[in-house]
Amino acid sequence: MYFFRNDYSQGAHPKVLEALAALSGEDNIGYGDDPYSSRAKDLIRTLCRCPGGMVEFLIGGTQANVTACAFFLNPWEAAIAPETGHLNGHEVGAFEATGHKILPVEVGRDGKLRPEQLPPLLERHQDTHLTKPALVYISNATETGGVYTKAELTALSEFCHANGLLLFIDGARLGAALSSPVNDVTLPDLARLADAFYIGGTKNGALLGEALVIPDPALAQDFFRMKKRMGAVLAKGWIQGVQFLALLEDGLYFDIARHANEMAALLQDGLKRLGLPLYFDSPTNQIFPIATAAQRERIASIAHFEDWCPAPEPGQTVIRFVTSFATPRARVEDFLRDLPGVL
Amino acid sequence: MYFFRNDYSQGAHPKVLEALAALSGEDNIGYGDDPYSSRAKDLIRTLCRCPGGMVEFLIGGTQANVTACAFFLNPWEAAIAPETGHLNGHEVGAFEATGHKILPVEVGRDGKLRPEQLPPLLERHQDTHLTKPALVYISNATETGGVYTKAELTALSEFCHANGLLLFIDGARLGAALSSPVNDVTLPDLARLADAFYIGGTKNGALLGEALVIPDPALAQDFFRMKKRMGAVLAKGWIQGVQFLALLEDGLYFDIARHANEMAALLQDGLKRLGLPLYFDSPTNQIFPIATAAQRERIASIAHFEDWCPAPEPGQTVIRFVTSFATPRARVEDFLRDLPGVL
Amino acid sequence: MYFFRNDYSQGAHPKVLEALAALSGEDNIGYGDDPYSSRAKDLIRTLCRCPGGMVEFLIGGTQANVTACAFFLNPWEAAIAPETGHLNGHEVGAFEATGHKILPVEVGRDGKLRPEQLPPLLERHQDTHLTKPALVYISNATETGGVYTKAELTALSEFCHANGLLLFIDGARLGAALSSPVNDVTLPDLARLADAFYIGGTKNGALLGEALVIPDPALAQDFFRMKKRMGAVLAKGWIQGVQFLALLEDGLYFDIARHANEMAALLQDGLKRLGLPLYFDSPTNQIFPIATAAQRERIASIAHFEDWCPAPEPGQTVIRFVTSFATPRARVEDFLRDLPGVL
Amino acid sequence: MYFFRNDYSQGAHPKVLEALAALSGEDNIGYGDDPYSSRAKDLIRTLCRCPGGMVEFLIGGTQANVTACAFFLNPWEAAIAPETGHLNGHEVGAFEATGHKILPVEVGRDGKLRPEQLPPLLERHQDTHLTKPALVYISNATETGGVYTKAELTALSEFCHANGLLLFIDGARLGAALSSPVNDVTLPDLARLADAFYIGGTKNGALLGEALVIPDPALAQDFFRMKKRMGAVLAKGWIQGVQFLALLEDGLYFDIARHANEMAALLQDGLKRLGLPLYFDSPTNQIFPIATAAQRERIASIAHFEDWCPAPEPGQTVIRFVTSFATPRARVEDFLRDLPGVL
Repeated sequence: MYFFRNDYSQGAHPKVLEALAALSGEDNIGYGDDPYSSRAKDLIRTLCRCPGGMVEFLIGGTQANVTACAFFLNPWEAAIAPETGHLNGHEVGAFEATGHKILPVEVGRDGKLRPEQLPPLLERHQDTHLTKPALVYISNATETGGVYTKAELTALSEFCHANGLLLFIDGARLGAALSSPVNDVTLPDLARLADAFYIGGTKNGALLGEALVIPDPALAQDFFRMKKRMGAVLAKGWIQGVQFLALLEDGLYFDIARHANEMAALLQDGLKRLGLPLYFDSPTNQIFPIATAAQRERIASIAHFEDWCPAPEPGQTVIRFVTSFATPRARVEDFLRDLPGVL
Repeated sequence: MYFFRNDYSQGAHPKVLEALAALSGEDNIGYGDDPYSSRAKDLIRTLCRCPGGMVEFLIGGTQANVTACAFFLNPWEAAIAPETGHLNGHEVGAFEATGHKILPVEVGRDGKLRPEQLPPLLERHQDTHLTKPALVYISNATETGGVYTKAELTALSEFCHANGLLLFIDGARLGAALSSPVNDVTLPDLARLADAFYIGGTKNGALLGEALVIPDPALAQDFFRMKKRMGAVLAKGWIQGVQFLALLEDGLYFDIARHANEMAALLQDGLKRLGLPLYFDSPTNQIFPIATAAQRERIASIAHFEDWCPAPEPGQTVIRFVTSFATPRARVEDFLRDLPGVL
Repeated sequence: MYFFRNDYSQGAHPKVLEALAALSGEDNIGYGDDPYSSRAKDLIRTLCRCPGGMVEFLIGGTQANVTACAFFLNPWEAAIAPETGHLNGHEVGAFEATGHKILPVEVGRDGKLRPEQLPPLLERHQDTHLTKPALVYISNATETGGVYTKAELTALSEFCHANGLLLFIDGARLGAALSSPVNDVTLPDLARLADAFYIGGTKNGALLGEALVIPDPALAQDFFRMKKRMGAVLAKGWIQGVQFLALLEDGLYFDIARHANEMAALLQDGLKRLGLPLYFDSPTNQIFPIATAAQRERIASIAHFEDWCPAPEPGQTVIRFVTSFATPRARVEDFLRDLPGVL
Repeated sequence: MYFFRNDYSQGAHPKVLEALAALSGEDNIGYGDDPYSSRAKDLIRTLCRCPGGMVEFLIGGTQANVTACAFFLNPWEAAIAPETGHLNGHEVGAFEATGHKILPVEVGRDGKLRPEQLPPLLERHQDTHLTKPALVYISNATETGGVYTKAELTALSEFCHANGLLLFIDGARLGAALSSPVNDVTLPDLARLADAFYIGGTKNGALLGEALVIPDPALAQDFFRMKKRMGAVLAKGWIQGVQFLALLEDGLYFDIARHANEMAALLQDGLKRLGLPLYFDSPTNQIFPIATAAQRERIASIAHFEDWCPAPEPGQTVIRFVTSFATPRARVEDFLRDLPGVL
């Protein structure tokens, strides 16, 4: 069986595991007050060119999204999010659990939010009997693999800041976005355009961990207490620091993200050649072919993947294949070689 | 410098790290739906003799406490906890953040709650203008190293169940408690007496992870959704399963806890011989000598420890030394050998 | 200026004010433990034919909706609501403030939710990474004046109970619904079909107050503590009891609601005759004509009303007129007489 | 039976009821956007000499306390309160329901918090693993009838502002405090010393309503949305404005509070003469004699009062008598005349 189910299916990149093992026998202070976490934070500040910025590690994506977005909002304020955004769609109400409403906005197949969608919503919410929109949540790459261009992010950032909104970028798959052939955005761009974003480790080679960046220290005050209150402080905090050091100090993070994207592109091209239509032509490590019920069943006989959503054409389904740092080229090539025989 | 600061200062027991490394290259399903997590859960059910019980892994202690206690309570209900209990004292209001009041009860130096303390509190809260106490939180070992006997736990459990209260046991240091020379409690006892408890991994040889047990499946319904809502579902869930398998399948968990306790006893006896009074004669891996300001400073010149609280005697301080699975016997012996020269 | 702005624009029906004034000089026990509240609750139980049911008074609509819906839900559960429902649309996230997600469902102009809309939503939410839908919120009359028939409510109730959902009916305008010419539902029907509903006082002749009914006492346990926790217990609770007694003991509640409906029908017919199209042909006390920008301005020169939403036709607006117990027939007739001259 | 149970036992002062009745037949805009509310707010600003201050009406004490305190706090921040403060003691966790911890401070029989009690608590909470104290809640008069002097309030205010704490004053019985013979505080003093306080109507002659004042408009931004989110916006908002106008425009509020205090003093003096010791010598409208079990029973045969708490002397009980605007002098005199025969 060929495994294309997700990008959090393997423990960690070998270099990350080695770095963890190398600490064996060493005593460290807990809760992130250790030298590895400090060095990793410094490195991230350098890479993002925000020397005064706050960097804090969180354990997973839902926790990072919820903790950061709730940190920024007053009780009567709401977050705007694409309807398909993870914050809205897949977190059992974890964000609402902090007492805030999400104002969902319908988006296209690329999952991207555009500033021109927001004025009517803002206009309507000037009514003080409604929540006050105060933050825009987006993800890059989006949940459907889309990548924001620098022009798009700049427009969104400018719109937000002109309208009293903070901009938060969910970076669970930031590696895939920044390593995509269509990308023209850098970490310093993100630090300049977003009020907060995170560099996702879990889906790009770490055992666990997301590095949240709040570039403006004035916006970050007391964040550690919020993190503790959310049960998000890892006792052995250096585990996170060590992993991000291993991933970021020599560019491994982007190398393995690029590999995952390339494997996805290879797979996407192959499926197109085999006649499977695409729901969306993805430039990152998640791809979305459309299959009839019969095709879906035949593919499922040789590969692990996920059903995504019903396709617009009746009786067809959008299915999702995901590649990762750990997807061997041979797996893609062998699958593409075997698939015609099955279909 | 001799390090006695805490029991979460080293990554993980070598056997745990080996088990994690052995998975390299293997694809697993996420969110705990993997075979290692299943086997670890089965093993825990077997060890606890609760074949129908629920076992779920959480990442750390605050998260386990808050998620489990909030899971059981209706919005108008409160948790009773020792004033020094972790739920009350050290979690930045993480439990109140779920919308519940804590009713703190003053306890002695051993940190143990006794059923005879509860009737006046229950009596007062029959007033429907007050919160309804619905759960008792205790920790074993307690935050000050105390260990509940089977008779004490039985009395507390019987009192709770006769009064409509659930009993939750924070087991962040359960290994230390169950491996203490004064202990007469077993895992099956806990599964019989408590409505929920957890087997703490973080403070006893795991990188991270706490195994929450709800012995009665009728009480556990929908827990996974609660866990997700609390941002507590780890994408690479098998990391937790693998670690608990390594720790529990051949008793390593209790062996290393016993080692930590023995090192603490050695240290405590040595300090007593050197004339330092004890705040509380601890049977587990945390010990609490009392030092004058001058003594405290001299000890700090050769060892890492923590200040705990002011001592009853003016000008003196209770300080805390903690040992762990990773504390070498030589560290204790050398420290005790060097200390007289310093004092 | 003719006032048609809303149905909470006049203090209270004279009989209600007299009943309040008659208590002058009398001492009463607070918090609803007074004889007037008891008698009013008994009367409501009798009218609803649910002798064991719980009746509790709340102060206003948002408070009644939020307190009751949050009372029924576990933390990981969500309420399904029409997108235009008050719970979703107009309460500054008051419901999300209790930690729950709302799953909005698009509905037609009548504002009514139909059971056939729910299966796809329920199907999707079997995924335990999503909230669990556990309650359906509707309002009767709806926010756009629609009235549920007994067949519709029965179908919805049966669907809910077959699918593990509770049914909650917001009755802020229940008087208007039950007194509408198209209505065939009674209070005992509501008590049989809904798990909770309220009889709205604020919008039908009371100074304030909504009477929440939970017909099954097993579902109502501890509700008073929830009410207190929500800041919803009125110290001088008898104020609410006295008002509901005055409104309900001889049918005044339905008489004045019928009057409001009749005034609305008179107005709606008149506007139709004057050529204004209707957004929706309302059978209750809120009506929704469509006006061009010019018409809207001219009407606004002689009457108070509210803008509702943009009309489907570009440049046109849906406007809302509301009548109440206190709308004199002459006001409607005079307005209809004056309007042609203005238009 | 003589009624001394509480000060919310009678509907409203006749002048208040007349003012409400005088509005019959008048149409008003809802939600507080009416001219009566505006005039009442202006009057309060004038009386408090804070021309730019925010005034908003809330329905009851718990709602006012919870809404205001939660409005000011970030999620990780806590309120400091006297252990006997209403916020801590009698609200079913309504404040914790907003996600915040209360840090209770033990106080004496007068219920007053003193600045010298706070430094150790502040010191301890510099630890970022604990909540951050950010607001001090007190009540004036206190729950046990105590009254803060101007010197005491000034000291507390200065301490708070020097330590990054806001000062909130629960004024449920502010009338009693400001009309007490021992009082030297004025409304402008409160507006100068407190960051927020409310003028309680419910317990001093209104049907319902508390007038919250936030003197500094910069601190009050968006308060209306918070109020709506808490279900605290009354549809017929003018009810509150009209009542506060009636109470405040010619000093009635203070006249009737003084009457209540005088009746309490008469009663307290009489009980002392009859040999009943006092738990606390109260200068306001709540008094606290101590009775043996036999005395308590005999008094209960002719009067309504409440049990307050066990007395320090074994077998004795502190009981509470409360007077109000509606307590006739004859009631006190007759009771004192009859009591000796019973005792």
